[in-house]
Amino acid sequence: MTRSTPSPQWQNLQTQLPLWEAQLNTALQAPPSQAHAATLSDLTKSIRQALGDRGQGFMALGQINTSPGDLAGNARQIMTYIDTAEALGLDLIAFPELALMGYPPRDVIGRHPFLVEENLKWLQAIAKRTGQTYALVGFVEPRYQTGDDIKSATTPSPKTTGKAYYNAVAILGNGQIQGIVRKNLIPTYAEFEDARQFEGAHQAGVFPANALGKPESPNDSNRAAANLIDIHGHRYGISICEDLWNDADFFEKPLYAHDPIATLAAQRPAAIINLSASPTRSRKEQMKHNLCSHLSRKYSLPLVYVNQVGTVDEIAFDGASRVYNAQGELTARGKSFEEQFLIINPLLGLVLGLGTMAPLPLGLEATLSAPKTFNAYDTSDLGRTYECLLQGIRDYFRKTGFQRALLGLSGGLDSAVTVVLLADALGPENVLGVSMPSEITPDSSRQDAQTLADNLGITLVEIPIGQITQTFSDGLQTIPQKLNGHWGTQDARSNAADNVQAISRATLLRQLGNEYRALPVATSDKSEFYLGYATVNGDMSGALAPLGDVPKTKVRALARWLNEHRPLTVKTPKGVLPESVITKPSGADLKVDPTTGQLVTAEQELMPYEFADEIIWRIEALQQSQTTLHSVRFQYEENHPLDPTQKAAWLDTFFGRMARAVFKWFVAPPILIIEGNGSIAKSDYHHPIVAGRIQWAGHTPAEIEHVLSNPFSSP
Amino acid sequence: MTRSTPSPQWQNLQTQLPLWEAQLNTALQAPPSQAHAATLSDLTKSIRQALGDRGQGFMALGQINTSPGDLAGNARQIMTYIDTAEALGLDLIAFPELALMGYPPRDVIGRHPFLVEENLKWLQAIAKRTGQTYALVGFVEPRYQTGDDIKSATTPSPKTTGKAYYNAVAILGNGQIQGIVRKNLIPTYAEFEDARQFEGAHQAGVFPANALGKPESPNDSNRAAANLIDIHGHRYGISICEDLWNDADFFEKPLYAHDPIATLAAQRPAAIINLSASPTRSRKEQMKHNLCSHLSRKYSLPLVYVNQVGTVDEIAFDGASRVYNAQGELTARGKSFEEQFLIINPLLGLVLGLGTMAPLPLGLEATLSAPKTFNAYDTSDLGRTYECLLQGIRDYFRKTGFQRALLGLSGGLDSAVTVVLLADALGPENVLGVSMPSEITPDSSRQDAQTLADNLGITLVEIPIGQITQTFSDGLQTIPQKLNGHWGTQDARSNAADNVQAISRATLLRQLGNEYRALPVATSDKSEFYLGYATVNGDMSGALAPLGDVPKTKVRALARWLNEHRPLTVKTPKGVLPESVITKPSGADLKVDPTTGQLVTAEQELMPYEFADEIIWRIEALQQSQTTLHSVRFQYEENHPLDPTQKAAWLDTFFGRMARAVFKWFVAPPILIIEGNGSIAKSDYHHPIVAGRIQWAGHTPAEIEHVLSNPFSSP
Repeated sequence: MTRSTPSPQWQNLQTQLPLWEAQLNTALQAPPSQAHAATLSDLTKSIRQALGDRGQGFMALGQINTSPGDLAGNARQIMTYIDTAEALGLDLIAFPELALMGYPPRDVIGRHPFLVEENLKWLQAIAKRTGQTYALVGFVEPRYQTGDDIKSATTPSPKTTGKAYYNAVAILGNGQIQGIVRKNLIPTYAEFEDARQFEGAHQAGVFPANALGKPESPNDSNRAAANLIDIHGHRYGISICEDLWNDADFFEKPLYAHDPIATLAAQRPAAIINLSASPTRSRKEQMKHNLCSHLSRKYSLPLVYVNQVGTVDEIAFDGASRVYNAQGELTARGKSFEEQFLIINPLLGLVLGLGTMAPLPLGLEATLSAPKTFNAYDTSDLGRTYECLLQGIRDYFRKTGFQRALLGLSGGLDSAVTVVLLADALGPENVLGVSMPSEITPDSSRQDAQTLADNLGITLVEIPIGQITQTFSDGLQTIPQKLNGHWGTQDARSNAADNVQAISRATLLRQLGNEYRALPVATSDKSEFYLGYATVNGDMSGALAPLGDVPKTKVRALARWLNEHRPLTVKTPKGVLPESVITKPSGADLKVDPTTGQLVTAEQELMPYEFADEIIWRIEALQQSQTTLHSVRFQYEENHPLDPTQKAAWLDTFFGRMARAVFKWFVAPPILIIEGNGSIAKSDYHHPIVAGRIQWAGHTPAEIEHVLSNPFSSP
Repeated sequence: MTRSTPSPQWQNLQTQLPLWEAQLNTALQAPPSQAHAATLSDLTKSIRQALGDRGQGFMALGQINTSPGDLAGNARQIMTYIDTAEALGLDLIAFPELALMGYPPRDVIGRHPFLVEENLKWLQAIAKRTGQTYALVGFVEPRYQTGDDIKSATTPSPKTTGKAYYNAVAILGNGQIQGIVRKNLIPTYAEFEDARQFEGAHQAGVFPANALGKPESPNDSNRAAANLIDIHGHRYGISICEDLWNDADFFEKPLYAHDPIATLAAQRPAAIINLSASPTRSRKEQMKHNLCSHLSRKYSLPLVYVNQVGTVDEIAFDGASRVYNAQGELTARGKSFEEQFLIINPLLGLVLGLGTMAPLPLGLEATLSAPKTFNAYDTSDLGRTYECLLQGIRDYFRKTGFQRALLGLSGGLDSAVTVVLLADALGPENVLGVSMPSEITPDSSRQDAQTLADNLGITLVEIPIGQITQTFSDGLQTIPQKLNGHWGTQDARSNAADNVQAISRATLLRQLGNEYRALPVATSDKSEFYLGYATVNGDMSGALAPLGDVPKTKVRALARWLNEHRPLTVKTPKGVLPESVITKPSGADLKVDPTTGQLVTAEQELMPYEFADEIIWRIEALQQSQTTLHSVRFQYEENHPLDPTQKAAWLDTFFGRMARAVFKWFVAPPILIIEGNGSIAKSDYHHPIVAGRIQWAGHTPAEIEHVLSNPFSSP
């Protein structure tokens, strides 16, 4: 296919379709009603007429928000979209990876294989209802004979090896399953853990329908001609998520020996379609765009990419499904962080696509062409960060069945940003702020909390904690005497008295949450998690930690961004966050310095957050060691003169605190993953708690020599 | 080699060696001193003389307890053992998988690649110090050129693909690295996650030393002759952990297409040596023994298996390194749950081995020949459970740098069993019991706690919590008024008032822990975790949850076992646990039934634990669904008549509570993994929190039909 100038008819369609598509999506998302059904019906007729007959390559991308294991909910959504596509007379509709089961199912399908049986029942029922519009539906395919007890299935000879399931796509049409595509490349790193449950297939493209439930056999090995599937006169190459991500020209270090896209492209399909559940992370949009553009250009083939939307616990998927033409140009793109029925046509070869070219989150478009460098102070990601956090909060509450949130509102930066996110995600009527001052809480903090609550239109209540912490203190007073010196005297460095304030606050929130069916939300940020500057069962406790992957400097930048870009209202004509909240030094407000009489700030206790955040970035993005960090020049040092001794001391503090913080990561609530190169979220990073004896600065040859020449000595 | 009758000289050695070996291990474990060095020297000379010259196949298994990332500590231990083996004139010494880095390193080596550089430095320094005794030392081998920045290494052409590291073994001897063995099979399921960081090699056996740091090349593909390594005249086949576990005759469903042991065995080595870090789980000892016996018999080859000992967070390794002769008979076995320097000779083909034949934990030997059936009421595992829990506690405290523990001692079963474990693991002087009665705590419970503390010789202090919970209640009292009906009235089913008791107790423990550098320990058991019958930030909170994988009925059985098998002392002449603790109904002692005036028991609120535990067992071991559970006859039903309606109601309660409990699993402290077929420990099982809409009973065809024929309706 070559690039062509669109005919006037298509030019007209290019203008009209986005408007129709917007109406269609509004109708699909509205609560069902008679009026709604009529609108949908009229709209569908108009669009169908404009698009013309089947066989022209018009298709839909069903960018849906699934929940793992919610077969009825996912299937209903899939069926709604299929029926719509059928009514529109489209050639096909493609859904994201594992759309029926919901991605990622994690280990649930291993422990509860009945769910896989159930997903086959739903799949077959959906297949029966398909007509001329083909549907590409992701599902979990068992690799062994199915039945009541998968384990006792008769074993074929030679024995089939491998995990029990394929991560698969069924091609449904004309009332039946027409073929099956199986994921080849099984990502197992960072937030991906496919290899725990899924076996990768060795062959790209389509397996016949009668292969369902049977593993690849060695006899299948040369079936290249069968790699494509013909749908209404066009042959498509179909692949699943990671299969797209192994190009040897694009990646410096490809992860897999085999490249399924190369296999498909060699068959010269009309287009390659990829069904994904690809998480969004900072700087990933750039890589995704460049990869898709590279592949379509490299093979001179249109590329269609349909991506899941929605958040599953810690992992966010951003949608933004898209089409690239054979010249590598982006011709259509769905919305980010929103469900969408997207009408496209990859075969027209247009420079401007059909239907939507939805904008990326604010600021992100500029990064697509930016050089691939790292920058600790990058602010172009704040729009995506905001939308990603909103989706994460919204989906966590909706999918766990809660509407209301509450949090401690201290007047500090983290809780202020968190409450704005909660109000925007859940509605201000569903958010309760609780001010829980102690004797040392400054009036200005309480006033800031009230101003913010007023700006947002949320309810704020106050519960002083002085009496509570006093009774704890009273309860413990007699203990040294009862212990009778048995364990010596109390640790002078104990921070028990500070922590009890944080825990008392979390306890009040949890009780209120119990009483009003609301989830308490943790406010700890990424810098605090790295530094262990968070109280177990206290401020880091809650149902969700929205800022747990946002470093403090980025929280502050996000606060400024909110004041600038969040829509102003009558209530908040000047920006929602009081300036004092953004500018005042961060601190836990847990103790007073006896010499100054002032509250001790976090940076006094630890180090400047700007410096700490650069360490985090250098560890995660550049994998730099403590030794390297000591010798490289920090961006921080450009603006702040830094004595090498001070730098070394801060580095020691950082690594020492990080090693002890690992326990806190282990018991942290879900953290919404935001950053590009790492996080401490449990779905993303695993670090043994007992790995506490790592010598972060490494060992010198002399130290190694000393240990090995005195092996019998005590450690 | 054929089975031979040992000569009188060997018979003598068989008698003498176990005694020497015991002395040797005592000396190796004692704190270093002049006297100790002299003993060791004398002993070594005697043993060396008895064993005779090198080249006879005498070797040591270095069953050590490593810590992930503790290169200096692990290297010191390795060097001590190598020096001892050299002094004894042994042919070789084999250490467990990844002995130098410590297994499992998890993602730490990905985020901090300097640790891999460091492990190479240590490896090379150890190599230099080796003499005629060869050492097999597990280490992390980078697959790309090493240097300051692994990422920027020049990429070879064609591109090398795959993960950055091999899980490898270096064969060290005569001052250098003699060869490298790379793990072929990369386990990624349950507690294993090797595929996140490690690439599997395709070739079994030994790579030349100059291959270090370079990935397999396609040109290596036919190097079968190089699969073995010659050490003092004997050719050995060396493999790593999972490489042993893929026999197509033994396993109904082998996980991998390739069997490295078959490759090695085809070269007819003198013996196969496997370096493992193989976790212990209920019923696994049976499988391990049968597999090793099967393989050595199948190939008529001696099999040497060296296994790591010690616990890493949730995962316990039990040692029990061993030798099987070519007839599949066990001829030597190291201790379980203890470090050991084990002298063996797999080449003698003796029926009785040399050195140790250490017993398995009490009761476990009988299971080796038991039929492979499941039994929910199996008690043969209690000895192993006890030792596994002790090791888990001891290692968690030692490796995180703590000596002291404290816990709430309620007089209930879970805290009673936990405190015995703590006292046995850490010493009674390091354990503090805290009784924290509320107004509804019965005097009998307080008395039981005191009796138990006296029996154990631990300190018990009392802190009533009535005032604390009262101030919380006071603090909240004004809230409904302040909320002004905004969120309606309080949820009548709220258990806030119950939970605050549990949280207040945990808070007191945490404060005391802070003040005395002691770790608070959680007491929740596996049944409670499954049923969500545990309070977040309350009883399920702590540094460690020792009983988190022990179901309630097994806790009770363990309590009886403790009274029977724990050594009696002057203080506890009759069994440490008061009978009333074992027999009284379990409950959280958090509320009183207003109609009876009695404390509400857990079984009244939930269901009989015997029934719940059988559900857990059937889910984990048999993967039975709710529908299947409803139709199968429970063992519970043999003894208790059960109405189908009641059974259905309990099943509904169980699955409903389980789905909501997933959040609690996510924020639980480390749980010591004990059971064989599953747990809810985070290292073992991943379940999305938002997978809350799973229809555990499945859908009928009519339900499916209804949803799909009304797709546009609201869910």
